[in-house]
Amino acid sequence: MDTTSYRKHIEKRIPITDEEFNTLLTLVKPLSLKKKEALVHAGELCEYQGYIVKGCMRSYLTDQKGTEHVIQFGFEDWYIGDMMSFLTGKPADYTVEALENCELIVFHRNQADELYEKLPGMERYFRIMIQNAFIAMQARLISTMSQSAEQRYLALLEKFPKIELQIAQHHIASYLGITPEALSRIRRKLVQK
Amino acid sequence: MDTTSYRKHIEKRIPITDEEFNTLLTLVKPLSLKKKEALVHAGELCEYQGYIVKGCMRSYLTDQKGTEHVIQFGFEDWYIGDMMSFLTGKPADYTVEALENCELIVFHRNQADELYEKLPGMERYFRIMIQNAFIAMQARLISTMSQSAEQRYLALLEKFPKIELQIAQHHIASYLGITPEALSRIRRKLVQK
Repeated sequence: MDTTSYRKHIEKRIPITDEEFNTLLTLVKPLSLKKKEALVHAGELCEYQGYIVKGCMRSYLTDQKGTEHVIQFGFEDWYIGDMMSFLTGKPADYTVEALENCELIVFHRNQADELYEKLPGMERYFRIMIQNAFIAMQARLISTMSQSAEQRYLALLEKFPKIELQIAQHHIASYLGITPEALSRIRRKLVQK
Repeated sequence: MDTTSYRKHIEKRIPITDEEFNTLLTLVKPLSLKKKEALVHAGELCEYQGYIVKGCMRSYLTDQKGTEHVIQFGFEDWYIGDMMSFLTGKPADYTVEALENCELIVFHRNQADELYEKLPGMERYFRIMIQNAFIAMQARLISTMSQSAEQRYLALLEKFPKIELQIAQHHIASYLGITPEALSRIRRKLVQK
């Protein structure tokens, strides 16, 4: 597997020697997902956290009325998974699904203790990763609670300028909590401005 | 300051010697907040994370229409603050306010590097604290997106059976994203069941 970007991702946050990186590679494994295949389904245990080497993914939940709500998109050089389930061992709230053919590097929750024992420096790395996940989640909650759909759409474009090239409109609409028709109206309105 | 519960909170998660705990005490300080005083106001930098020794608090944001949304309550033996701001140095999304006279033990963000250098074991403690904050935030987002107000109210009571003794109804309504009148209707309906 190509581990270049994975190593860079780690080295941006903590120093890691060749020997340590090789030890880390004994604790992770590559995983290929075809389009629409899932890393985890809602209700199951999320055994893996996935680093996305190639492709893009979405996590979503389905409410009691059967409506899907996209929680998060995952792009190359990001982690994805249901962190709550991974950390606590409880069933996942969301399904994490490949939006195109994806290459991941995955880490199993049962190996966390071994990882921290063999590579104590990774405590810091995972603390930083969890911090970032927390910050993204806080931003998501706050925009959901306090911004209009148009504001949320503009913020999404600002954060991911190329998102509309990679992600289908109905998934973006679901992320924004609106119908695809409402998203079309917002886009038309913004084009006319 | 009484540090008994603070030490217990740490010892539940990581081992800590007397010497280490004394070092930690040189890096934190007590803070008393009167009812309605804030640990941080939205728009300011959140310099401190606060461990609540006594009292209860709320964090809330105010949307563009001026409506307050309670994000979280904080009880004794919990941490509170705007973690995004504390971690990133960006302005806080929320105001964190005492709902009654409170005693906190606070930790300044500028001392994080010194803390981890002097007490590497605290990396793990703060990783666990951030994990827990993340899990709470994920649960909050998911209930906001996919549950009815009645379901959210019942879940809140299940998690904090005594909450109505400590927290005013209008704050609970704001947490649930409904008006106090709507909360009264839900309560009447549940009593009649």
